Amino acid sequence: MALPRIPLTIGLFGCGTVGGGVFDLLHNPVRRQALERLGVNARVAKICVQDVHKDRQLAHWSPTETSFTSNSRDILDDGSINCVVELMGGVDAAKDVVFEAIRAGKHVVTANKALVASFLPEIEQLLRAHPDVRFSYEAAVAGGIPIIHTLQRAYSSDTITEVAGILNGTTNYMLSKMEAHGVAYDDVLQEAQALGFAEANPSADVDGFDVQSKIAILTKLAFGGVVAPAAIPTTGISRLAAVDFKYAKMMDSTIKLLGVAKLVGPAADSAERTGTPPAVAVFVSPVVVHRSNVIASISGATNLVNVRSQNLESAAYVGPGAGRFPTANSVLNDIVQLARGDAPSEPFMPSKPLTLESDYEAQFYVRVTITDGLGIIRHVGQTAEESGVSVYSILQAPIVDRARVQFVVTTEMSPLSKVRAMCQKIAALPFVQEEPLFLPIM
Amino acid sequence: MALPRIPLTIGLFGCGTVGGGVFDLLHNPVRRQALERLGVNARVAKICVQDVHKDRQLAHWSPTETSFTSNSRDILDDGSINCVVELMGGVDAAKDVVFEAIRAGKHVVTANKALVASFLPEIEQLLRAHPDVRFSYEAAVAGGIPIIHTLQRAYSSDTITEVAGILNGTTNYMLSKMEAHGVAYDDVLQEAQALGFAEANPSADVDGFDVQSKIAILTKLAFGGVVAPAAIPTTGISRLAAVDFKYAKMMDSTIKLLGVAKLVGPAADSAERTGTPPAVAVFVSPVVVHRSNVIASISGATNLVNVRSQNLESAAYVGPGAGRFPTANSVLNDIVQLARGDAPSEPFMPSKPLTLESDYEAQFYVRVTITDGLGIIRHVGQTAEESGVSVYSILQAPIVDRARVQFVVTTEMSPLSKVRAMCQKIAALPFVQEEPLFLPIM
Repeated sequence: MALPRIPLTIGLFGCGTVGGGVFDLLHNPVRRQALERLGVNARVAKICVQDVHKDRQLAHWSPTETSFTSNSRDILDDGSINCVVELMGGVDAAKDVVFEAIRAGKHVVTANKALVASFLPEIEQLLRAHPDVRFSYEAAVAGGIPIIHTLQRAYSSDTITEVAGILNGTTNYMLSKMEAHGVAYDDVLQEAQALGFAEANPSADVDGFDVQSKIAILTKLAFGGVVAPAAIPTTGISRLAAVDFKYAKMMDSTIKLLGVAKLVGPAADSAERTGTPPAVAVFVSPVVVHRSNVIASISGATNLVNVRSQNLESAAYVGPGAGRFPTANSVLNDIVQLARGDAPSEPFMPSKPLTLESDYEAQFYVRVTITDGLGIIRHVGQTAEESGVSVYSILQAPIVDRARVQFVVTTEMSPLSKVRAMCQKIAALPFVQEEPLFLPIM
Repeated sequence: MALPRIPLTIGLFGCGTVGGGVFDLLHNPVRRQALERLGVNARVAKICVQDVHKDRQLAHWSPTETSFTSNSRDILDDGSINCVVELMGGVDAAKDVVFEAIRAGKHVVTANKALVASFLPEIEQLLRAHPDVRFSYEAAVAGGIPIIHTLQRAYSSDTITEVAGILNGTTNYMLSKMEAHGVAYDDVLQEAQALGFAEANPSADVDGFDVQSKIAILTKLAFGGVVAPAAIPTTGISRLAAVDFKYAKMMDSTIKLLGVAKLVGPAADSAERTGTPPAVAVFVSPVVVHRSNVIASISGATNLVNVRSQNLESAAYVGPGAGRFPTANSVLNDIVQLARGDAPSEPFMPSKPLTLESDYEAQFYVRVTITDGLGIIRHVGQTAEESGVSVYSILQAPIVDRARVQFVVTTEMSPLSKVRAMCQKIAALPFVQEEPLFLPIM
């Protein structure tokens, strides 16, 4: 019962931070020996980069073993190359490379979350037409955490009910700073940009689009259904202020930007689902998380994925979300799995019908900004009542500036739709200065 | 490149909490269908139990498919059974069953940590003589956490430098209670016993022997070397008192019973180890853990394994440490892996030479119990100096009872051997009432 091992001759696209790390891990003679003992025979034959003359500072490069090219055809048309490792980033050019590689019968390993999330159904379809091709993407979600392989392997006899993750290191770093030092959002963003953690255009991170792609991928793995990233309701962190961490602290909680996908409705309670497809609510939002939850303890650029399921109740996987060697390590895990003949033939798990439910129930944190006056609590309470939302508590820190007072209402378990409608009504009240910020509470 | 799938006809030994859970997960028709879609064809043909007449309350049992027996030969001599799942517990009888099964060419899945840890070299040797037999034991360490598969698969291109885990749910429950409610050790033990969390004879848990077996197994997986459980220096939790949590809190820390295995000496710093075998320090001890460490956030019966490595720096795996379905889920993961032809041929990873180092460096927490008097700090400081240990801080809560004063000395980074010698000297000082309690600080 020896496994059908596959000697891999690799064409690498991209040789930046992660690509260089992959090359050096794979060609380091000591590690190579260790991999050979595991039955892994893999080498990079060609590297496709834009500028072949740039010094890539590869510690273990040898010109007799690996050549550089700027022409992707040199790899895609090379019959001796049976595996493409795509680490070039971006979507359009990467898509051409990956799709052509599959059509040419080459295995693909990629770290490209946007590509995988945006073209998941097309990739699945292409793989069905090329059943001998393996497609691996461990590094696409949560950098160094082996979450893809774990979801592919550890839950086959289980029913996942919720996946919630800190999936973006940049924003988690920023939120951790805001909490620890009471820093304002703009200041912490500037600092993160100065340190190189945040991009000059930080939108992908702070507006939650990066997390959107990742939770779309995790949703497919956990529940079997395809969700278009753009269809996921997404709230970023840019409206969070130091005061929110103050109120969270009063609730013995903190605030984390999470990607969440959870079963809702009757399916959430039954182990054996038959008949109607389960409904899943998927969203990206800052969430108020109680201190006793392990999610609250993850600070800095670290990522976490928390999986709730019927057999395990709750399990969490924690590790670095990005960086040269963490991400390269995940790419290497894919290469090793492939070379050992272990890569799954259905990398996104078998497809299942799934209903995307835009509404879900939670307790909510609602921060209201007002000009101080009389009868305000009564007005807000009345609006909640009219909206069918029960108020659980009202938090009010000592007032410093009567012209701009911020207080917090927390709700009982309520549907998101009702809370959103309530917030729109509150925004229309005369003394209210801006649309209330509402966050689910976990 | 389809995988060589293996239809499994299973002989199950033991049908208690975990065994019954495994049976019901595997024979539940909805789950079975899902497994079949993954290419898993597995059923339990025979169950060996002491009392065949006891009602096992199996929801999905059918007499035409599965028979009960009290004679192990009915399974071991049955040529149609190609897989033994051993969930009977204990070591002696289980060892006979497992060893005979391997000799008969049957695959083995077990949850038996004591068996695996105590007979690891023998099992490895037997598997070398029977290269077609697969041996899986995911459920033997940290119940529902897929830590065995993760160590087997996610670190092949990495170098692990430390594994540290909360590996016993009972003691973690007890320590969490002591911390949260300031309860004395004896009271929390009685409560845990009344709730059925702790055994009438709690020694395996509270004296650390259960963790000893588990960290021995993790040491083999992480570093390649066999460590006999009995050779692991082990301190349990029975000497911990409410006052230790008070002092830990002053240090913004808590106390967790950990199994730890870490590289020490020059090997710890070099990615590429050649020549001399690396030295690993392995121990079981309560450890003072700072709040900022994710380990400190794990309370109740939950387990955690934290893995430090060169590529990932730090990654943590969190989940239930025991229980019917978490443990059964891990057994099922082994069965699925085996049925799909994915079970590794070297389940303990390739062996590597390793030196067991009984000494290691850490900062230490030393709690000294004295009758109050003059010049005590000077005496203790002098003893530390004579022992070559530098004092980092001295903590003294307000004194309530002058006849029994407890204070804490924390050390700079020091070798365990010097701290132990210092504590013996301190114990001999006239005003000291008992041997100081010393715990490493993480």
